[in-house]
Amino acid sequence: TVDGDRLWDSLMQMAAIGPGVAGGNNRQTLTDADAEGRTLFQRWSEEAGMTMGLDRMGSMFMRHEGTEPDLDPVYIGSHLDTQPTGGKYDGVLGVLAGLEVIRSIRDLGLRTRRPIVVTNWTNEEGARFAPAMLASGVFAGVLTEDYANSRKDAEGKSFGEELDRIGWRGTEAPGDRKIHAMFELHIEQGPILEAEGRQIGVVTHGQGLWWLQVTLTGKDAHTGSTPMAMRVDAGRGMAQMIEAVHRIAMDHQPAAVGAVGQAGFWPNSRNVIPGRAVFCVDFRSPDLGKLTSMRSRFEVEATEIASGLGLEIEIEPVGHFDPVTFDADLADSIRAASERLGYSHMDIVSGAGHDACWIAKVAPTVMIMCPCKDGLSHNEAEEITPDWARAGTDVLLHAVLDAAEV
Amino acid sequence: TVDGDRLWDSLMQMAAIGPGVAGGNNRQTLTDADAEGRTLFQRWSEEAGMTMGLDRMGSMFMRHEGTEPDLDPVYIGSHLDTQPTGGKYDGVLGVLAGLEVIRSIRDLGLRTRRPIVVTNWTNEEGARFAPAMLASGVFAGVLTEDYANSRKDAEGKSFGEELDRIGWRGTEAPGDRKIHAMFELHIEQGPILEAEGRQIGVVTHGQGLWWLQVTLTGKDAHTGSTPMAMRVDAGRGMAQMIEAVHRIAMDHQPAAVGAVGQAGFWPNSRNVIPGRAVFCVDFRSPDLGKLTSMRSRFEVEATEIASGLGLEIEIEPVGHFDPVTFDADLADSIRAASERLGYSHMDIVSGAGHDACWIAKVAPTVMIMCPCKDGLSHNEAEEITPDWARAGTDVLLHAVLDAAEV
Ligand SMILES: NC(=O)NCCC(=O)O
Ligand SMILES: NC(=O)NCCC(=O)O
Repeated sequence: TVDGDRLWDSLMQMAAIGPGVAGGNNRQTLTDADAEGRTLFQRWSEEAGMTMGLDRMGSMFMRHEGTEPDLDPVYIGSHLDTQPTGGKYDGVLGVLAGLEVIRSIRDLGLRTRRPIVVTNWTNEEGARFAPAMLASGVFAGVLTEDYANSRKDAEGKSFGEELDRIGWRGTEAPGDRKIHAMFELHIEQGPILEAEGRQIGVVTHGQGLWWLQVTLTGKDAHTGSTPMAMRVDAGRGMAQMIEAVHRIAMDHQPAAVGAVGQAGFWPNSRNVIPGRAVFCVDFRSPDLGKLTSMRSRFEVEATEIASGLGLEIEIEPVGHFDPVTFDADLADSIRAASERLGYSHMDIVSGAGHDACWIAKVAPTVMIMCPCKDGLSHNEAEEITPDWARAGTDVLLHAVLDAAEV
Repeated sequence: TVDGDRLWDSLMQMAAIGPGVAGGNNRQTLTDADAEGRTLFQRWSEEAGMTMGLDRMGSMFMRHEGTEPDLDPVYIGSHLDTQPTGGKYDGVLGVLAGLEVIRSIRDLGLRTRRPIVVTNWTNEEGARFAPAMLASGVFAGVLTEDYANSRKDAEGKSFGEELDRIGWRGTEAPGDRKIHAMFELHIEQGPILEAEGRQIGVVTHGQGLWWLQVTLTGKDAHTGSTPMAMRVDAGRGMAQMIEAVHRIAMDHQPAAVGAVGQAGFWPNSRNVIPGRAVFCVDFRSPDLGKLTSMRSRFEVEATEIASGLGLEIEIEPVGHFDPVTFDADLADSIRAASERLGYSHMDIVSGAGHDACWIAKVAPTVMIMCPCKDGLSHNEAEEITPDWARAGTDVLLHAVLDAAEV
């Protein structure tokens, strides 16, 4: 088993970089804080005998050699970037648990036949640059490097410029690696494991997603002197569409969600009727039919709302992945490891997107989940217990040792 | 009559300072561009033989001496600040028309018994710092200097700090002036004069206003993995309240308006259910009963919506003025001047707030309006014709000469 205290201590040291305002983290991708977090992870990994590979998307591949270096390596990975008001565990646990697996293997004097590579994927969150899971998407060949480099944050800075600025662009071509198996440990970010009292979630499937960026164009005008009948109010269009998103998701229950997380008015002045509103719709379901149906129903309803209000509408998909089925044999190995270790487990569907969802397209992949308090994530108050972190990492160690062949 | 070409030329020179992105202006209050506009207006005024007074709110009082300097002066004034995507005439016309009145008086070799003071009131727009008409409100004794100095922009900079930074704080106590009569020429910012084919609006009344800043607090959470039933979505609360504002205004027709111009989500990330939404409601009516009724109905409905969604709600008034009745004798003098000059005129109610609305509390005050194209204002495409500007300024000249006693 792993050293739970050492793991927890590393989590807390990483959390000190890019602190939030309420106990969590703001270590958004390609910021100075992200660079600092990367440097710390590199140092720890090198101290644990690993050597770094870095691809042109800035994804870090810390390799622990196997006794048969020519065999395809086993990968463990997640992400160190956070939401603007994010938690200390979302992504970070999966990377530092990988490091703890290597540290434990060395403590135990074990050698694996296959190399093990612990990965930090760039821009998983998609908070600063949409879409989420950008670098793993490029690695899996689903997104192009040019597309990734051109993605812009709210200030107009591009992914490519910012990656160069923080000095973390590598030379390796993304995707130019053979993967024997890939494991991602992640906090659930939902309430099920805690409610069911299980320590381990065996992730068999992941929800698919559509992110639809909507731009409504009306006419800026004075809120006081413009008669009601002359208004072309983009803000009202947004308001009606936010409610439509909710209604559509509710009509697709169970196993479907929908919300609007990002929204802005222009010119955003108290006495100006909004001439423009831009917002992003997030629809998800593990059922491809429902996912497609929510998107098309939104497009129909949004177009009706816009034409009713005299607004121009543009809908641009800025993120998409289909529902994922993870590798059944690897899922069996997670169940077996949990039982061997005496941890309670259950099968679960991931509500969030993860780097593992893209890697599943190019290699056998599976995810392990541990509970999080009150199902709360993407919130600075996100919390887990040291016991939950240790249990998940113990299972990860056992499953990785099986795959990497001790 | 005045020199319409000189007036237009000055308008265009001022418009070159703080240009917008689409042909209008972004010369928001207490920015560097505002300081530049002030300096130009000061130079022009001094070239026209005027001397400057400056109060602690940064309001500029350019005085043209009368033959009897001890008589209470006649004031002409409006504002040089603009919306972030504002027009070239909103406010600016009223200040530069005042300058043109003085230039014309000098050209004609006239002397007035009373001094004439052309005023640029600070922060009329309320776009950067709420409320609107801030410095004229302090001058009229309705708002305190401390309150004004403490008002913050979206970046957290205060009015007081920014006034000091641009170097335009004077020493004169706000309100420490006697006003014989005050005139404000302004573009209508609505469609009525153009539709009715009249050159001059005699403003008999102004609408009252409530600005209600609403803060909704829910719970940031993951858009993917949080079950629909567990969400406390501040964005949905905002959406429902924007529609409530519209419905309430429609239920108070005619002579009532309502809209939301400024709105934001926090943390404003695509995959985070908004834990906070902040927006500002703008209700107006020339009828005090309707104005009060809209505010109270909104408070009731908003509280219901919030409790239905499990949101905390806070409603803070950030701007308010009652409906205004302008001085009847001065309105007569505007009608008389229009007829003498052969300009078509009609009585009109101001839909927007103006500095004149506050000054009406402490001195006989009236407004003159000229048409604007398609009723469009608070938009970079705001437009007027040189003929409309000249006609309004001619009427202003005649009415001011009557009041200042040639
Ligand atoms: N795990 C996680 O929060 N990923 C961000 C991408 C998503 O929105 O699901
Ligand atoms: N005239 C004008 O646009 N003033 C700004 C204050 C208001 O919102 O009415």
